Amino acid sequence: MANKISLGRYMWERIHQIGVNSIFGVPGDFNLQFLDSIFDVDGLKWVGNQNELNAAYAADGYARVKGVPGCLVTTHGVGELSALNGISGSMSENIPIIHVVGQTTRAMQKNHMMIHHSIGQRPDHQQYNKASVPLRFAAAELWDVENAPGEIDRVIRECVMKSGPVYIFLPLDLSAEMVDAELLKTHIDLRQRLDEEKQNEAVEAIAEALKAAKHPTLLVDVLTRRFGAAEETRQLAKKLNVPVFASNMGKGIVNETEEMYGGVWMGAVSSPGVLDEVKKADLVVTLGYLPADTNSGGFSRNLTEARTIRIEPHEVIVKGHKYSDIAMKPLLSAFLKTLPERPQHTIEKPTLPASRVPKDKDEKKLTQSYIWDRIGSYLREGDVLLGETGTSNFGIYDITFPSSLQYEAQIYYGSIGWAAAATFGADVAHRELLQSTKKNGGRTVLFTGDGSLALTIQEIGSMVKHKSRCVLFVINNEGYTVERMIWGARQIYNDIVPTDYEKLLPLYKHPDAQNSYHRVTTKEEFDAVLQKPQVVNPQTVQLVELVVEKLDTSWRLGAQLAVRGEEARKYLKEEGFHDAYGNWGLSEEAMGGTGVSWK
Amino acid sequence: MANKISLGRYMWERIHQIGVNSIFGVPGDFNLQFLDSIFDVDGLKWVGNQNELNAAYAADGYARVKGVPGCLVTTHGVGELSALNGISGSMSENIPIIHVVGQTTRAMQKNHMMIHHSIGQRPDHQQYNKASVPLRFAAAELWDVENAPGEIDRVIRECVMKSGPVYIFLPLDLSAEMVDAELLKTHIDLRQRLDEEKQNEAVEAIAEALKAAKHPTLLVDVLTRRFGAAEETRQLAKKLNVPVFASNMGKGIVNETEEMYGGVWMGAVSSPGVLDEVKKADLVVTLGYLPADTNSGGFSRNLTEARTIRIEPHEVIVKGHKYSDIAMKPLLSAFLKTLPERPQHTIEKPTLPASRVPKDKDEKKLTQSYIWDRIGSYLREGDVLLGETGTSNFGIYDITFPSSLQYEAQIYYGSIGWAAAATFGADVAHRELLQSTKKNGGRTVLFTGDGSLALTIQEIGSMVKHKSRCVLFVINNEGYTVERMIWGARQIYNDIVPTDYEKLLPLYKHPDAQNSYHRVTTKEEFDAVLQKPQVVNPQTVQLVELVVEKLDTSWRLGAQLAVRGEEARKYLKEEGFHDAYGNWGLSEEAMGGTGVSWK
Repeated sequence: MANKISLGRYMWERIHQIGVNSIFGVPGDFNLQFLDSIFDVDGLKWVGNQNELNAAYAADGYARVKGVPGCLVTTHGVGELSALNGISGSMSENIPIIHVVGQTTRAMQKNHMMIHHSIGQRPDHQQYNKASVPLRFAAAELWDVENAPGEIDRVIRECVMKSGPVYIFLPLDLSAEMVDAELLKTHIDLRQRLDEEKQNEAVEAIAEALKAAKHPTLLVDVLTRRFGAAEETRQLAKKLNVPVFASNMGKGIVNETEEMYGGVWMGAVSSPGVLDEVKKADLVVTLGYLPADTNSGGFSRNLTEARTIRIEPHEVIVKGHKYSDIAMKPLLSAFLKTLPERPQHTIEKPTLPASRVPKDKDEKKLTQSYIWDRIGSYLREGDVLLGETGTSNFGIYDITFPSSLQYEAQIYYGSIGWAAAATFGADVAHRELLQSTKKNGGRTVLFTGDGSLALTIQEIGSMVKHKSRCVLFVINNEGYTVERMIWGARQIYNDIVPTDYEKLLPLYKHPDAQNSYHRVTTKEEFDAVLQKPQVVNPQTVQLVELVVEKLDTSWRLGAQLAVRGEEARKYLKEEGFHDAYGNWGLSEEAMGGTGVSWK
Repeated sequence: MANKISLGRYMWERIHQIGVNSIFGVPGDFNLQFLDSIFDVDGLKWVGNQNELNAAYAADGYARVKGVPGCLVTTHGVGELSALNGISGSMSENIPIIHVVGQTTRAMQKNHMMIHHSIGQRPDHQQYNKASVPLRFAAAELWDVENAPGEIDRVIRECVMKSGPVYIFLPLDLSAEMVDAELLKTHIDLRQRLDEEKQNEAVEAIAEALKAAKHPTLLVDVLTRRFGAAEETRQLAKKLNVPVFASNMGKGIVNETEEMYGGVWMGAVSSPGVLDEVKKADLVVTLGYLPADTNSGGFSRNLTEARTIRIEPHEVIVKGHKYSDIAMKPLLSAFLKTLPERPQHTIEKPTLPASRVPKDKDEKKLTQSYIWDRIGSYLREGDVLLGETGTSNFGIYDITFPSSLQYEAQIYYGSIGWAAAATFGADVAHRELLQSTKKNGGRTVLFTGDGSLALTIQEIGSMVKHKSRCVLFVINNEGYTVERMIWGARQIYNDIVPTDYEKLLPLYKHPDAQNSYHRVTTKEEFDAVLQKPQVVNPQTVQLVELVVEKLDTSWRLGAQLAVRGEEARKYLKEEGFHDAYGNWGLSEEAMGGTGVSWK
């Protein structure tokens, strides 16, 4: 029996072996017993959350920062389903997640017992399992102890390979059955299986196309990071020495301090000058491209097949010719090896006009144009920055990041409430990384709005409990301003519950609440807060409330909506949204076809 | 065009026609435009919530109290999925819910556009719709304006007939198309279709069996209320004049002040004396029976087929003989008409021993045995009482309710966090009822615990915003005590985030926060708080924090767990759980087979 461990323990050991140190989730009566096994695994700890949706978001944030799967545990039905929207977000954004669901015992299931959390008079206990089928890559539906270890290994591999959510359904009684501990000695094979011949063909085709181009240009997008090829992408940008642009979601992957970096290419709503620069390109190499509306300026970044190389997670398309069964990371590695020491191309670095001066520059009160202009100098190397869907992300695109800043945002899936809870998980991961590398100084910084924060506000409590040092910037504009800009600027459904943020840290017994809450209504106050020692080098959670007017926003959000056409622009103007830079009137032509009609 | 209205408006008019006055939900960019139509419907109002799960819970609470469907609106994917666990709870508990999902436009769907909230490079926008298939009774997947009104009518009918959740999926652009307003003049047919011949057969069989019995006994359960037969059930209890017991979920349906009412029959964990009384029965008539573990003392309420009449929502089973295609409400009406004015049976009223005296009766500090003993005299006629899964519900079973008190709890589905958000919706409904009947005095009262409240705490903000007058009793035992009793009494996963409840009402800008928060640590303080004018006749939200020891609980919860067997009892004892009445040592025999093994 010395070599036997419980299946529950086996599962946690496997999860720990691939680099997971923290488990998120909520205890429930069908997972309690195997939660105990977490404490048997050296280096693994229980973190927990205030509810299951927050747990899924936190696991998502953890995975993004640590570069390994995030893991959460929920209980049969009630917990499992509460987490589902978070899981769906991880599916959309290719975040690897292991969702362990503690199920009713096999006897309860076989006998269709009316155990609490079930539905109907002869319940099918697998009813909930069906709900997540379209929202996961794989599931281990465990039933027999003989094949359970293999099934656990299989879905962990799928999780990493496909970079998305997988489920482990573990009946409570099964978790206590014993398996051979020796199985742990052979680690799960996480190597990409690849066809070297096909890879070589693709590498040659890329090299040839690049050689033939006079002004190749890189567009770095988020799937490089999701499929573990961020480092190769950075090296490629350095070695090729051609202009590099980022998509919104790809922002920060290549150091923005690099000489050839030209900024965020967001189609019609790119920063001034970017469109002129990218027009010079006779070949665009996209890396890990994800052309969602919110990542392409409303589909206004037009790329023609004949002048594009697309390097995708599992295929390469060179000017329309497809090379399949590829894995991006080894492909880029192989390609990098073929490049000469001295770059082939000599292209001038992109030159962009100086930052515009906003119309509201002389106002005393705080405005979003000031926030985004000012915050760049607050950020520093090693920071992890999370942005929320809404006005925050659209402002963040204007910041030039210091090197090695990791920016994370749920730009495709866009589920509001994600950012605050994901920040908790991101910070847990960030501190693990800092501890293992003994590095200092990197902070975890959140930008969110009051509308979004309301959905998951209790996770600030988890931050306080776990001695997080996050800096939380909360834009208070009394509601959903991003929605006010889309429709119903003055409708009550876009107003939220009035909230006095001064009471938030005390609610969760923050040890130094008074000195850790900072309310900002003017530009001067904002400058002063950004100098405060506890905001610069936080030792506890810091909450900075940024009070702006209801209809104040960043120029880019207005511009993104204006892409929808004349009617949208008229609406924005009539409703009196601030137009700090006066440039929403982009011509239809400049914006290209958007495919989205304003209705 | 005078007779044309938008499809969005049509939907809201239909929903209002069946008695819905308040719409819950969260705005999102695929429902904003048709939210505007709510304001066009006379008597319908937008309420809104802090997040979608809370919205689903609130709609559930509204439906329970108002006796009409609850309605919530969410947005494509992100909102839709966040609500899913709440919907699943309504499915489990037979609560009628209309979930309106604002979907992407049909053009976006047809072209598989990568619109935010989607998954993948060629997204199927109906991917989320699939997740709720096992958790709903019907769905209107609207696409053509021609059949849309009929589809909306169909699912609203299904919602009421089956008493459970239905979905209306409404593509944003379709909501603006016009339909004939004349359609509204013919109301949706909500009558039960029934086979009178079969009903008569069932009525005769019931009458015959009753006549043959010497000591028939009623067991009232929750499905009577869910299928609109609560009033008929009360009349039946009165007219038959036989002993009446309630299941946990059926508690309060029959007035507990009725002479023949004998208390809660919960199998092995019934109140003292109840089992002796029900043993006298030679026939048990169950009404709307729902024999889940948590509604039957862990399956320890043994009924033999030969001595049972089961009157179910859609069938009647008389001593094993089944009568199908029945509808409970008209069946009971028909049966009532056959009963003579003077009852056939003369049975002595159930006599139960006097309440036991708890061991901790002389302690000064507040204990749960005191709370449940004392709270009965606080409650009054017309109150709506909501109880949360955990220690709260198990205590509530001991209270003798005043007449016309409605008790609601999610005892089968048992999703913690439900109660606080459901209380918000229940109170909205309660106030609508009070306004329409011009009655005074009924309060909305919640009993929850700190562990459960954490999941949905932001909905207290909605209560404050909407000028609710709920009285919220929150048991603070620093975590999940119900779980501590099941497993891991001293494990950290059962501890929650420390919370200072004094800050909660101020966080949401309660207008009289200081006078509306009451902290109780002793029995004396509890007595004093229950006398305070603002707690007796609240004009604003009142929050009463009840501080008890971590391992203190009601006797019945311990007893329910002890039903699992010797090992469970040993655990409870060793971990030091309070055993205020000293009666957890129920014999295995007394408890009967539970079907649940302690593992």
